[in-house]
Amino acid sequence: MTNNNKLCVGIDIGGTNTVFGLVNNLGECIEEVKIKTSDYPIVDDFVLEVSNKIKTMLANHPTKHVLGIGIGAPNGNYYSGSIDFAPNLQWKGEVPLVKLFSSYFDIPIVLTNDANAAAMGERIYGSAQGIDDFIMVTLGTGLGSGFVINGEIVYGNDGFAGELGHTIIEKDGRLCGCGRNGCLETYVSATAIVNSMKELIQNGHKSSLCSISDISSKSISDAALDGDKAALLVFDMTAQKLGFALANTVAITSPKLIVLFGGLAESGDLIIQPTKAYMEKYLLDVFKNKIEIVPSQLMSDHAAILGASSLVW
Amino acid sequence: MTNNNKLCVGIDIGGTNTVFGLVNNLGECIEEVKIKTSDYPIVDDFVLEVSNKIKTMLANHPTKHVLGIGIGAPNGNYYSGSIDFAPNLQWKGEVPLVKLFSSYFDIPIVLTNDANAAAMGERIYGSAQGIDDFIMVTLGTGLGSGFVINGEIVYGNDGFAGELGHTIIEKDGRLCGCGRNGCLETYVSATAIVNSMKELIQNGHKSSLCSISDISSKSISDAALDGDKAALLVFDMTAQKLGFALANTVAITSPKLIVLFGGLAESGDLIIQPTKAYMEKYLLDVFKNKIEIVPSQLMSDHAAILGASSLVW
Repeated sequence: MTNNNKLCVGIDIGGTNTVFGLVNNLGECIEEVKIKTSDYPIVDDFVLEVSNKIKTMLANHPTKHVLGIGIGAPNGNYYSGSIDFAPNLQWKGEVPLVKLFSSYFDIPIVLTNDANAAAMGERIYGSAQGIDDFIMVTLGTGLGSGFVINGEIVYGNDGFAGELGHTIIEKDGRLCGCGRNGCLETYVSATAIVNSMKELIQNGHKSSLCSISDISSKSISDAALDGDKAALLVFDMTAQKLGFALANTVAITSPKLIVLFGGLAESGDLIIQPTKAYMEKYLLDVFKNKIEIVPSQLMSDHAAILGASSLVW
Repeated sequence: MTNNNKLCVGIDIGGTNTVFGLVNNLGECIEEVKIKTSDYPIVDDFVLEVSNKIKTMLANHPTKHVLGIGIGAPNGNYYSGSIDFAPNLQWKGEVPLVKLFSSYFDIPIVLTNDANAAAMGERIYGSAQGIDDFIMVTLGTGLGSGFVINGEIVYGNDGFAGELGHTIIEKDGRLCGCGRNGCLETYVSATAIVNSMKELIQNGHKSSLCSISDISSKSISDAALDGDKAALLVFDMTAQKLGFALANTVAITSPKLIVLFGGLAESGDLIIQPTKAYMEKYLLDVFKNKIEIVPSQLMSDHAAILGASSLVW
């Protein structure tokens, strides 16, 4: 059977929406469906609905061979196949997602967290093709990360590796959702950049974003592009924290490439150039001028599905 | 051919001494020689001497099959086979060590840095047997580290991964030999603990170690065992820095085990228990009470040779 007769299913579960679809061997999403995750407070109803819709999609491609289902989800654990205590999902405790889908499909089903799924997607379809050592950093509501080392995703001993967002970079720093203080994601994420901007304005900095209720990571980005000094300062502060954390991370894993993914990464050079400059400043000499930071090439509507499906290939 | 007919050569190059010998498949060092590294300002003379002595040793075991030579050395690069700019060796610049030994031996020759060699030794002969995800931390003059992830040593893109000692844990902290400030190894190493003790005494802390010239990591350890409060405080301060850095490192790589090796690790529970307590304090919930910290089982005279030879097995 040739590769172009094969399909994978990709499912990306988010707190608000779940998108899923069929991906061919060229990394093309040939069918896609979106449903509201929050419409399904009971996970069994969710799995039934997704499974039915996938079966309908597959029925349109009767000659194709379906290799498996890849699922990316917050707190998805590769080893256990469960979503464990995800703060942004309404299904509480340990949710045995792979087991639940297995009652509808007799093909391999793989689950991992969304950052690892994005990393695999980047390696198979994006800017990390052929690169065995890189870091994917996802900048959304929080800060996620997926590490590829020696060509493999790093799950660690218990499947929870890659919590770069919860490395502490400021002792006694901002309170984090995890209950500790000073985690990287309290300074570097879409949420964090909004908090930083509010702090600056409350401390008397002048900005075109005069109404605090108008502040979003998008409006800060737009203001910075228009030359707003406070907005530019916020990007600089954010980049300094990220650059510092990346320099320490590079010292441990020595990657060739760092890929930024997600909402804040869409600010492009506003975040990437100063992050690279600060990272270089903090790097040990032996790592200087060796490591690229690039935006993800998968930041399209289909990115999440591609990432999830790539777990199967 | 059975395994018990096989031998490996292990060479451990240090700033002061080089030890090398023959290791059998049981991890026993069956012959060993020590020479002074500093007696050989020209590396070619060094390689000739070591090669001749190895050939003499091997001549005593004519029926054995020699699989290869493993070399551990400061700044040893696995990819290039060179020792690159090692500050503690008198051979300057890039020293193509594997190439030099290759002119004397027609068997595989592998070079890596001393911490990676120790990690492989621990995995094959020590407390990390059967463990695919662990961290080896070597506490000597500096702080080295070797990471094993998915069962493989992490060399990273350029062979320089594992520089945990050069992660910055205190911005504007102590000046490091690398030219930056606040690196972990300026707070956690045999050298660092001596500096910490001197600082305490200069700041008026009372200690049985009244003469600053008597202070060594051994005398601090002895004083702490005798209940010296300043010495105990130094161990606590050191453990706090190490525990903090390990907690951040665990968040990235999620190991099952952390092994401490080298001079300072010989202080045993004086360093291990408080380090474990501080690490737990700083850990993200999901990692708490999962990760052991243990002393290396290879801390004998032969440890370095075993580690180096294990690169070949």
